[in-house]
Amino acid sequence: MDTFKIIFDTQLGDEALQLLQSGVVPHQVIVPDQPAVSVLARSAHHPMYEEADIAFGQPEVDSVLRSQRLRWLQLTSAGYTRFDTPEFRAAAKSRGLVVTNSSMVYAAPCADHVFSFMLAQARGLPAALQSRCASGTDEWNHLRYTCLPLSRQKVVLLGYGAIAVRLVELLQPFKMEITAYRRRARGDEGINIITRDGLPAALAEADHVVDILPDNADSRHFVSTAFLAAMKPGAVFYNIGRGTTVDQAALAEALHGGRLGAAWLDVTEPEPLPADHPLLRAPRCFITPHIAGGHRDERASLVRHFLENFRRFLDGSPLQDRIM
Amino acid sequence: MDTFKIIFDTQLGDEALQLLQSGVVPHQVIVPDQPAVSVLARSAHHPMYEEADIAFGQPEVDSVLRSQRLRWLQLTSAGYTRFDTPEFRAAAKSRGLVVTNSSMVYAAPCADHVFSFMLAQARGLPAALQSRCASGTDEWNHLRYTCLPLSRQKVVLLGYGAIAVRLVELLQPFKMEITAYRRRARGDEGINIITRDGLPAALAEADHVVDILPDNADSRHFVSTAFLAAMKPGAVFYNIGRGTTVDQAALAEALHGGRLGAAWLDVTEPEPLPADHPLLRAPRCFITPHIAGGHRDERASLVRHFLENFRRFLDGSPLQDRIM
Repeated sequence: MDTFKIIFDTQLGDEALQLLQSGVVPHQVIVPDQPAVSVLARSAHHPMYEEADIAFGQPEVDSVLRSQRLRWLQLTSAGYTRFDTPEFRAAAKSRGLVVTNSSMVYAAPCADHVFSFMLAQARGLPAALQSRCASGTDEWNHLRYTCLPLSRQKVVLLGYGAIAVRLVELLQPFKMEITAYRRRARGDEGINIITRDGLPAALAEADHVVDILPDNADSRHFVSTAFLAAMKPGAVFYNIGRGTTVDQAALAEALHGGRLGAAWLDVTEPEPLPADHPLLRAPRCFITPHIAGGHRDERASLVRHFLENFRRFLDGSPLQDRIM
Repeated sequence: MDTFKIIFDTQLGDEALQLLQSGVVPHQVIVPDQPAVSVLARSAHHPMYEEADIAFGQPEVDSVLRSQRLRWLQLTSAGYTRFDTPEFRAAAKSRGLVVTNSSMVYAAPCADHVFSFMLAQARGLPAALQSRCASGTDEWNHLRYTCLPLSRQKVVLLGYGAIAVRLVELLQPFKMEITAYRRRARGDEGINIITRDGLPAALAEADHVVDILPDNADSRHFVSTAFLAAMKPGAVFYNIGRGTTVDQAALAEALHGGRLGAAWLDVTEPEPLPADHPLLRAPRCFITPHIAGGHRDERASLVRHFLENFRRFLDGSPLQDRIM
């Protein structure tokens, strides 16, 4: 049997490293002296890539492209913006480099996170948790009667990957009318899919719009002034995709103007927003600091997901979360 | 056909009254000059009850007992503490008085509300919505890695009425291990039911304990020092039942001591809590002001629920939400 060298290029801590090392025996884990920090940062090219067969982590694009040996790259994120270029895709294809990501690790927590936004909005939690009003007061009547059951409401999902599939499962008991926007319909989604042409009509009806778009050339400022103007008055916008997909000045404007019911964002551009950013002063705008994918045991989950793919790699069976 | 007089004894506003009046034609709606305010308040006996066949609202117990004509009482609440006495039950039975409540109207919003608590807790929303931390900081790592997926966790429900049944539906996608406590198991619940004897073992394992108990002689301070001590360290307590079911001093103590992960309460005793109450200073204690049952169109829903029962009453078919 060949013995593979796996370069582990990310900062997941010693426990994750040990779990990885013990899981791949007799194959070898090698660790650069300055591992990459996150999907959003960039590490310099590292010579250790020259001897690696497999990379697991957040490598620099150059390191991957320059390596002669690399056969498989697994990213520790769901996002893969810097690899999502025609040049990289072409290079990977011509060299037979397989690329996988960690979508499955993040799908459930991301779906939970945006679902927690939807329910917190439905039950008015931000205001209710601050209130000590008495029964029968105007404030109490307002809190009670503005609670909005999700049941049978309409939702448009922007993007239909693993997170959206899980969110649809979570929404099942509410019997909502769910529509998803994709660049291209595949036909096997099992829910109503629209492409660009169908968006205005869907937005005019939707009570909830959930942005799960990745960052790429097509998605930049996808949620624009025109997009927001096409939304039903009072509708709620959620973003757990990428901050770059939203024209944030337009979003702040839509909140100030009162047309948008609320915005719940886990991602912004940049992160965190500077203290004087208009969205921080916009009414009914609720922001968490890009934690939607987080969960206890996240690091161990990432390693376990890699180990399952490594088993498949050794067996020659199809890898999970393959993106290229 | 007999023409019935329906006394509408609660403050639901003119729209609700009109919906009721137009829905019962040719039967007659009569309205006392000082209608009852809420299930928690008490109105004086009103002579108009002497001529009513049906009461809909929040009547005083005495008004119901003194009326010679009353055949059916529908309460506009799910709770019915002041009617839940052996004396009233005996009187209702001997006179053939049917009593229904409005559980079905409140089950879904109450389940949504406690579910929003569970998800807000799982995703750490109270802290995350206040944070503007940057990726990779200690605060960020803490927020991310303390998020706790609900999947496969264990939950104990205290009480198993309409709210619990709906909550179980909502929790379905998480494949949690759900156990419900009831005074007496009926055998047709379809989930694992325990009675008093089984409680300590279940509490020792549960990650979440959801109090949906009504206020009655058996439930007072059900959640006691001993109950809280039997809970698994770090577990989370939720209450959408009644504040009286909890020994609040013991709850504050369990939060201060760090044993309890958090408490999410929609009900307290009294409501609202006085400004110097220990629970308001307890860490990880999140309180909403008794709004769990609230929802847009709540008043119309209450009337529609009555009208459906009125149709059944006229037909002689079984009434929904019958409690006596």
